[in-house]
Order: sequence, then structure tokens, then C-alpha cells
Amino acid sequence: MKSESAAPLVAIIMGSQSDWPVLENAAKTLADFGVAHEARVISAHRTPHAAFEYATSAQKRGLKCIIAGAGMAAHLAGVMAGLTQLPVLGVPMESPQLKGIDSLLSTVQMPGGVPVATFAIGKAGAVNAALFAVSMLALNDESLSKSLSDFRAAQTKKVLDIKLD
Amino acid sequence: MKSESAAPLVAIIMGSQSDWPVLENAAKTLADFGVAHEARVISAHRTPHAAFEYATSAQKRGLKCIIAGAGMAAHLAGVMAGLTQLPVLGVPMESPQLKGIDSLLSTVQMPGGVPVATFAIGKAGAVNAALFAVSMLALNDESLSKSLSDFRAAQTKKVLDIKLD
Amino acid sequence: MKSESAAPLVAIIMGSQSDWPVLENAAKTLADFGVAHEARVISAHRTPHAAFEYATSAQKRGLKCIIAGAGMAAHLAGVMAGLTQLPVLGVPMESPQLKGIDSLLSTVQMPGGVPVATFAIGKAGAVNAALFAVSMLALNDESLSKSLSDFRAAQTKKVLDIKLD
Amino acid sequence: MKSESAAPLVAIIMGSQSDWPVLENAAKTLADFGVAHEARVISAHRTPHAAFEYATSAQKRGLKCIIAGAGMAAHLAGVMAGLTQLPVLGVPMESPQLKGIDSLLSTVQMPGGVPVATFAIGKAGAVNAALFAVSMLALNDESLSKSLSDFRAAQTKKVLDIKLD
Amino acid sequence: MKSESAAPLVAIIMGSQSDWPVLENAAKTLADFGVAHEARVISAHRTPHAAFEYATSAQKRGLKCIIAGAGMAAHLAGVMAGLTQLPVLGVPMESPQLKGIDSLLSTVQMPGGVPVATFAIGKAGAVNAALFAVSMLALNDESLSKSLSDFRAAQTKKVLDIKLD
Amino acid sequence: MKSESAAPLVAIIMGSQSDWPVLENAAKTLADFGVAHEARVISAHRTPHAAFEYATSAQKRGLKCIIAGAGMAAHLAGVMAGLTQLPVLGVPMESPQLKGIDSLLSTVQMPGGVPVATFAIGKAGAVNAALFAVSMLALNDESLSKSLSDFRAAQTKKVLDIKLD
Amino acid sequence: MKSESAAPLVAIIMGSQSDWPVLENAAKTLADFGVAHEARVISAHRTPHAAFEYATSAQKRGLKCIIAGAGMAAHLAGVMAGLTQLPVLGVPMESPQLKGIDSLLSTVQMPGGVPVATFAIGKAGAVNAALFAVSMLALNDESLSKSLSDFRAAQTKKVLDIKLD
Amino acid sequence: MKSESAAPLVAIIMGSQSDWPVLENAAKTLADFGVAHEARVISAHRTPHAAFEYATSAQKRGLKCIIAGAGMAAHLAGVMAGLTQLPVLGVPMESPQLKGIDSLLSTVQMPGGVPVATFAIGKAGAVNAALFAVSMLALNDESLSKSLSDFRAAQTKKVLDIKLD
Repeated sequence: MKSESAAPLVAIIMGSQSDWPVLENAAKTLADFGVAHEARVISAHRTPHAAFEYATSAQKRGLKCIIAGAGMAAHLAGVMAGLTQLPVLGVPMESPQLKGIDSLLSTVQMPGGVPVATFAIGKAGAVNAALFAVSMLALNDESLSKSLSDFRAAQTKKVLDIKLD
Repeated sequence: MKSESAAPLVAIIMGSQSDWPVLENAAKTLADFGVAHEARVISAHRTPHAAFEYATSAQKRGLKCIIAGAGMAAHLAGVMAGLTQLPVLGVPMESPQLKGIDSLLSTVQMPGGVPVATFAIGKAGAVNAALFAVSMLALNDESLSKSLSDFRAAQTKKVLDIKLD
Repeated sequence: MKSESAAPLVAIIMGSQSDWPVLENAAKTLADFGVAHEARVISAHRTPHAAFEYATSAQKRGLKCIIAGAGMAAHLAGVMAGLTQLPVLGVPMESPQLKGIDSLLSTVQMPGGVPVATFAIGKAGAVNAALFAVSMLALNDESLSKSLSDFRAAQTKKVLDIKLD
Repeated sequence: MKSESAAPLVAIIMGSQSDWPVLENAAKTLADFGVAHEARVISAHRTPHAAFEYATSAQKRGLKCIIAGAGMAAHLAGVMAGLTQLPVLGVPMESPQLKGIDSLLSTVQMPGGVPVATFAIGKAGAVNAALFAVSMLALNDESLSKSLSDFRAAQTKKVLDIKLD
Repeated sequence: MKSESAAPLVAIIMGSQSDWPVLENAAKTLADFGVAHEARVISAHRTPHAAFEYATSAQKRGLKCIIAGAGMAAHLAGVMAGLTQLPVLGVPMESPQLKGIDSLLSTVQMPGGVPVATFAIGKAGAVNAALFAVSMLALNDESLSKSLSDFRAAQTKKVLDIKLD
Repeated sequence: MKSESAAPLVAIIMGSQSDWPVLENAAKTLADFGVAHEARVISAHRTPHAAFEYATSAQKRGLKCIIAGAGMAAHLAGVMAGLTQLPVLGVPMESPQLKGIDSLLSTVQMPGGVPVATFAIGKAGAVNAALFAVSMLALNDESLSKSLSDFRAAQTKKVLDIKLD
Repeated sequence: MKSESAAPLVAIIMGSQSDWPVLENAAKTLADFGVAHEARVISAHRTPHAAFEYATSAQKRGLKCIIAGAGMAAHLAGVMAGLTQLPVLGVPMESPQLKGIDSLLSTVQMPGGVPVATFAIGKAGAVNAALFAVSMLALNDESLSKSLSDFRAAQTKKVLDIKLD
Repeated sequence: MKSESAAPLVAIIMGSQSDWPVLENAAKTLADFGVAHEARVISAHRTPHAAFEYATSAQKRGLKCIIAGAGMAAHLAGVMAGLTQLPVLGVPMESPQLKGIDSLLSTVQMPGGVPVATFAIGKAGAVNAALFAVSMLALNDESLSKSLSDFRAAQTKKVLDIKLD
């Protein structure tokens, strides 16, 4: 992806490699908009030092926001948000037993003072986190704003064109 | 509030006047950062035309993001997000019986394509939506970025200073 | 279906084409009763203008009620109900992770003032929304009332005829 | 209430006298529209014969729909719906421990074949069931249709007139 | 089953034929103890008159208890319990979307005055309802009491004999 | 209470003295029917030896059934049921945070082989467990059967006599 | 408390000063056993550097285990557990809206590899975390083992001595 | 496994043989650390005497902690904890319908006085209970402490080495 080679504006991090098939939808969405991004596996629990380092250096590295996906007791987005003032977007992963209601509550119910913007469980959330990142970046990028506008129009047209048998 | 007189950058809208005591925390937080904002009661169900008009004109009016608080079958943030490409931040209100789990799921579980960034139920969510709005605006406002950094440092210090009896 | 060619009395709308296999059960039920109906994909979020137009013109077009099926943060029925005073019947779709409890709460928990009559999650709800529409129309249509009465009698007989091995 | 003296079109029944303060909101709403109605305490469990008699004679008595409120294992609306083909509207009552999630699922999750149109838990549901009954009756009553239209316009205006301090 | 030919002491009724594969476990358990029983499909909603007739005649027919299995808005056990003073045992069926939490709450949360003894969702509940019926009958049947005692001892032995690889 | 002095037929046990105000409703109901009973605080966790002794001697002591109330991780009914073949009736207590959904699931979801007949959370469940015990004993006690029949008739009459203002 | 002056063996940390009235029960329990401990407010989100420092130095400072209480999206115990190999005991705090089910799932649902031993929501969990810490320390401290044994015996006696009126 | 032949320090018990494929992960984890352990099927309900005997003799036999896995109304860990003062670690098993939320609440919500340290539902919980047991034993076993430290470092490295395609 060409968008990977530029200095990344958006980080996609995830607690486990098994989250990648879901988070890849965020990466593809960003790529569709030509937004430079990077994707890494970083665990709040298993690689806390790396998480610490990643979060505290994110702003200096030029990142504009961090998309963090994690499942079960999903602490990754919250830990990031405690260590950077960049916008952090949380994507709760579907969990094996509780289907992501644990991941959702662990991500969205942040106490006042340290926000995590949370999206739907699973693939819909991954896509929407990326679209939301685009909408943030588009606030100061007219070309991206135009692309988003075109995407929305195309999305609308696609629904309007549906014919039920 | 001085921040009300400038052209508003952030809108705080809510489905019912009874949401104001909670959403007022978002307004106060924005005021603390000197971010110009406006607050309105707009119901997706009871004033749909006004909601339509508000959402479709928001970007032209210079707004940079919309914080939408609603309870129960909380559709306000989602309706906004369908009508504007500005970032929409959803705050689920506590509901009388189900305590906001209905509001939370109605806000966060947006299908792929139209994102709503969702925060915690009630006051914590109202404060955090405002802080998140600040973090977005701070991406292109060094002075605001400095203010946010100061706020975070002060918040940290306040915790560190606590003495348990 | 012959019932599609007459001026439709009942609309079946849904947020996504993937809802059709479930909502088709509503269409079939209406067809069994010879109730003219139409089915459309209209998304509260992805096609808000079409939703707006559809709802506001429904009564003038001679529709008597709207069955709206949607999943996850299911706003379609509520948005319709805010824009028309026709009876709106909501069918919560099963969602991939939370199995429709999100769709149910997003549909049924409407604040006072704008009602959505809600039915069970998934296929049972689709069938029942159609049967409920028939029961409403039957209030002023003796022939339909007789058909409904026959349907209920046949349904009863079918259960009574069951022999467990 | 004058509307009580005419032949009732809408029945409001409830499983317990303690439900009356909530269901009274349905009665008041119907009275505001001048819709003749009656209110009775009938329990699916404690007065099953009366429930049986009430449901099977409802249509002959000229009733057009039944609003049934019940709490906990809320069977009243479903029992009614099994015994009459009139539209049955269910209002789940708030329950002492589970806050009405038990009442809601007991009311809305009707298996295919016998529909109950369900509304929100508690007061919002009581008001909305009455408004929905009005919307059904308005399908064949132009004067009532006009009243409903006026009500909706007034409701909209009331929201638009709100001034936040 | 020989136990089917004697005058039945226990009734196993269910809301739908599709419940039989689960409830059959109750029948088999009763058969293992030689307890005469009968099994019928009776729906509280689709065959309310049959349900009424069945419940009100049960005691006269010599039945000692009724096991009622139903799913979703599971009203069957409660309706039975309102119409007979025989002990009624409820078995919540697994439901397609909510997995039986709806069935469980609809069965167990009976308001004070009309009890339904409730067991676990699905097969475990079906087996246990039958075992519970046996334990009730065994209070006045020494031979059955001995059989139950033997069953429990065998069940214990079976666990104690397990060898993990 | 006179019914306390006779050899008890029904035991009411509870995990904590704080459960007594709720379980007392079971005792009063039994007393109303003249059913001899005893009430004890026995904890599955804090007095396991006493629980063991109580359960294993219950049948020999002439008890016919055990009503066990407990809250949170409510193990008391299940532990009883594992140690006696008498019918065990479980009453889930309201818990401080989760309002008894923890107590309910801990009581009702018994694996196949060892049944606990479960009733509603809190006071309704306490009353109903006692009524259920009466219905079991009435199977072999015509006088008690008549009393239960009278109780049910009086309960019905009480509902029928209600006049809504 | 004398136990505060010795080198602490157990740490009690909490995400907010408002958690202290609940966690104080853990401190009192430890004090009753004469177990040296310390209590600190440390937030995973608002004081992440302090949390990092505290966790990584805990073992060197002679601590034997960490009791961490937090509410809502409760990450504190998990963050500790990622940074130390000492046993970490999590106490989910009751939260304002969801009553601690969010805190519980955020604490207990740790992915494999980094364990948090979790206890009940609120005060019961605080007491039990302390008792569990005592049971761990008692494995290598005969005097403490004797104290725990005495505590358990006294607790049992207290229940056995209860007389219901 | 060599670790099985030594005097076991850790017991792994489970309510049903069907829990073994999940609990085996605890056994394997202990084996990886060379911690002697034993595994047994013991049911709180079906083999209460064996459970009683096992718990009361555990400390004398030299066991240092008990890992107890059970599903549905999961009482095994709590029953153990009532009968021994050894640390008891509870692993909630996934249940057929409710996916383990019943098992989790039945295990974790222990009333104050008798603690059960609870871990995640299913495999993650089994692994983590074993790792937690290791962390407890490592408090007084430097070699084991070193092994745990190595395990944690290897686990961290494994995550850091992941390359997303």
C-alpha cells in the first residue's frame, strides 16, 4: 500500500495478531482514502513497555490519531489515551464467549478526564474508526474532505440502487 | 461565557432539556479551554426537520464537530452523522429504567459507513466528549495543544497529591 | 406477487439489503392476505434524504403503515416515526455480535411522544409485524378480518393436529 | 373524563393496581384526544377466567385495540393477543429488581403467529402506546388525524422553544 | 414406553413441536423411573382454548404436576399455573437470538401469588424438571423414593469413576 | 406461630440474617396455611459443616421440602440439593449491585442431575416458593388442597374487586 | 494502624479517592490480621507514569501482592499485572450507571498470559481480596495461618449463633 | 507428565469431565513450569461427599492452592473455599446457552468472608489461573520466580516479533 510508505498519520494498533483480520478493514479504509498509516501489534498487558514507548512518542512522530483494537478486558485504547493527548479511537473486538460486550464496556466506559472515542464491536467498528479518522483529518485537508464527500455520495448511491427481487 | 459569543466550533445538542444538567459538563469543559461552542435542544424524533437542517448546515456554519447527547433509543448522534461528514461525538444519557445501556448500544453500535464516536454513559461521557473535541482541535492549534497538555499535567498532579487519611 | 401491483397499503423498508431474507417473511405474510405492499432498502444513516422523503410522503401516497427493519444501532423505525404520523412497526434485526439485543433496545426504547410498535428480534418479529399490520387494516375491512380469523383458526388447528412420536 | 362515558374504543388493562399510576398516562393521553376508553385490572395469572372472557368479548363489544401493561413475567399482553385478533399493544412495567428488562422480553419476544406491539418500559411506553392507538384510529377518522397532526406540531414547537440558560 | 399407557401422573407440554427434542429428555427421565406421563404440544398463544381446557381439567384427570417448556416470551407455564393449583414446573427453551435469557425471565419472574418452579435453560432444565417431579412424587411413594436414591448413588459413582487421561 | 411447634414439614433456610425480612414472607405464607415449618440461617460458605449436616438429616427429620434463599453467588440451594433428594426450592435474593441477576443465575442454572426449583428474585419468589410448597403438600392432603383452592379464589376475588378511580 | 508502619507486604491501590470508602474494608481486614500494608490512589489513566513506576518497583520494595480497585473501564489491575509478576487482585468498583458490571468485565476478562485474580463487585470484593491475600501469605506463615483459621472459626460461630425472632 | 508424580502443590478440579479440554490448559501451563499438580473430576452437586472430603484434606495433603473449574450454576469453587483456607482459584466454564456469564457470576460474586479468586471464562481463565498459581508459589521459590520472569519475557518477545503482512 502506497499509503504505508509516507509518514503515517494514523496508527492502527491491536492487542493480538488475531485481531488483524478485523482491523485490516480499518487499514483498507484508510488506504482507500490515501491516508498514510501504520499497523502494529502492541499489547497493554504483554508488552507494556512497548505500549508506553509507542504512546509517549506518537505525537512527536507526527501521528494524528491512534486506532486501538482489543478484546475481552480491552485496556489498550485506555492505556494509550492515558499516555498521549492525541485522539484515541477504540475498537472493541468480538470476544470468544461474551461476543464483545466485555470489550465494549472495557473500552467505552472511561472515567472522566481521559477520553476514548469508541466504535461498534468488530468489523463495523474498525471501518467506522477509520472513517472517523478521515473525518478528523478532513477538517484541515480540503482534498480529503472532498474524498470523504465523494465516498459518502457513492455509499448513498449504492443503497439507492439496490433492487429487491 | 465568552466562548459562546465567538463563532462556535463545537455544537452540543441534546434530545431533551432534561439532558442539559449532564451535557452542561461538556459545555463547561469547552469553556475552560476557551473553545467557542453553542448548545441546543434538538430531537431526532420530535424536531426531525430542525435536526435535518442543523446537521446539513453545520459544516457551512463553521462547526468542527458535534457532540450529541440522547437517552433510551438514542438516535440523535446517528441521525446527525448520517447528514454531515463532520465528526460526531455521541454521549449516551442515563435512562430511567435501563440506566443507559439502551442509550449506549443505540449510540455506539452504528453499522459500518457512518461513524459515531461514543463515550461513557452520563457525566463522564459528557466531559470526555468535550476533552476529545479539544484533542481534535488541538491537532491544528498549538495554543490549545498547550492548554490540553497543561490540563493533563494538572489532572495528574491532582491525583498524585491525594492523601488517604 | 399480485399484491405488489395494487397501490401499496403497507411499506416494508429495511436498513440493508442483507435484512431482506428476514423481512421477506413480512412480505410473504402480507401477500398471503392479499395486502398490497412495497419493499425498499432505505438507510437512516446512508440515505437520510431518501428516508426523509419516503417518510414525509408516505401518508399522501396512501400507505397505511410502515414496517421498518434494522439492526445494531437501529434508528430506521424511529426516524420514520418522527417524520410521519402513520403507525410505524419496528423489527429489530439479529446483529452479528450482540444477536439483536442492541437492535431491540434501539427500536423499542423510544422516548414518550413518538411511538414505534416493536416486535421480536428476527424472523418471528417480521412475521408478527405483518400480522399486526393485517390486524390494523382488518379493523375497517371485513373481508380481511375474516381472512385473519381463518388464519388464526388454521394456525390453531395446525398445533392441535401435532402428534409427538 | 367525558371519553369514559362513550362506548370505549380502546381498553387499558393491567396486571396489578400498582401499575395504574403508570398506565394512567395512557388514559390521560387518550382523553386528551377524546378517544373513548376504559381501564381495568385483569391479571393473566390471578384472574385467568376474567382475562379469557375479556379478550374473547372485546371485539364484539366494539373495542378497536387493547393496551396491556404488566411487569416481571409479563404475560397479559400475550394472553390477550392469543384470544383476540384485535391489535394488542404491550407496555412493559418497571419491575422491582430487574427494572423491566424481564417485563420487556416477556412482552416483545412473542413467537411468530401471535403479535404484540411493544413499547418502551414504563411511562414513556404508556404514553406511546396511547399515541400509537390514536394513530391507528386516525387512519379512518379525519378529525382524529387532524388532532394528531396538531399534537405533533405542538410537540415540535415545544422543543424548538426551549432556551438553555 | 410402558409408562405412557398408565394413567399419567406427569404432563409434559410444550409450546411448539420444535421443543420436543429437548423436552423428550424429560419424558425419558420419567420413563426411566417408570413414572406414567403424557406429552402434548399446547401453545398459550396459538391454542389458548386448549391450554385453558388442559389446565382446568388436569387435576381431575389425576395429573400430579405439569412440566411446561416454552421459548422466547414463554408464557405457557405461567398460564398453566394461573389455571390449576397443581405444581407447575417451567423449562425455558433456548431461543434463536437471545439463547433463552428471554425464556428464562418470562418463566421465572412470576409475580407473587401464582408460582412456577423454574429450571435451567434447555436440556439440563428438562432433565431436572423431570427429576424434580420424581422427587415430589417420591414424597409419598417409597418405591420411587428408593429408585431416586439409587439413581443419585449411581450418578455419584459415575463421576467418581472418571479417570482423566 | 402455632405452625412452628408441630414437627416441621418445610424448612426455610437462608445464607444470611439479612435475608430474613424477605424470607419471612415465605414463613408467613406457610403459617397462613397452617403448614409447620422452621427457619434457620445456614451458609453454604461460612457454615458448610452445618449445611452438610442439615441437608443430610432433613429427610430423616420428617421435612418434606427445603426453601433456600441466598444472594450473589447463591450456592445454598444447590448445595442442599446435592445432599438430599427432598425437593429444594431456591429463592434468589436481591443483591446490592447486580440486583439479583447473579443470585438468579447461580440458583436456576443447575446442571442436569441435581434440580433446584427456582422462583422470582426477592419477595415475590419467597411468597411463591411457599405457595409452591403448599401445592406439593396439597397433593396428599385434601384439607390443605381445599385451603389452597380457597386462597386462590380469594386472590382472584381481590383483583376482580379493584376499582380504578 | 500499626500494620502501616512495618514494611508493607500488601499494596492497596485504587483509581480514585472516591474508591477509598470501599477499599478501606480491605485495609481494615488486613489490619485485623496484622498484615503490613499501604494504600495509594494511582490511576492507570490519569497517572500512568506513577502506575508504571509503582508496578515495576513493587517486587523490589518487598510487596507480596497488589490489591487494585477501579471502576467503569477498570484498567488498573490489568495494567499492574502487565508490569509485575506479583499476584494482582482486582476489586471491581460499583459504577454510577451500570453498577459495576462494566468494572467486573474490565477486570476479570483478562486475555491469557497476564492474570488478574478478581473478586466480587464492591465491599464484598474488597474484604475478600484482603482475605485472599492473607490466605496466600499464610501459606508460608504459620502464625498467620492460625489467625486465619481462628477468623474462619469465629465467622462460622457467628452464623451458628443467629436466632431468628 | 513428570510434574504429576511429585507430591502435588496445585489441584485442578472440575465439575464435569467435559471441562477437561479447557482445564487441561491449566495443567499444561503448570507442567511447563514444573509445578507438581493433580487433576480430578469432583462435582459439588453430584459428588458432594467427595468434594467435602477433598476440600477438608487438601491442606494436610500438602496442596498449596486449588483451581476449580465449573459451568452454569458454578458452585464448585465456592464450596471448596468454604471448606479450606487454601487459596481457591475459580475458572468459569463456557455454558451451552449463556456462554459463561452464569458461570462467571456464580463464581466471582462470593459474599464477603469466603473468597474465590476468579479468572476469565474458558481457556484464557484456565491458563491465567495456572499462571496465577505459579506467581503465588514463586513468592517463596526463587527458581520458580526466575522461570516466571523468563516466561513473561518470552511472551513479550513473541508479541514484539509479530510482523503484520
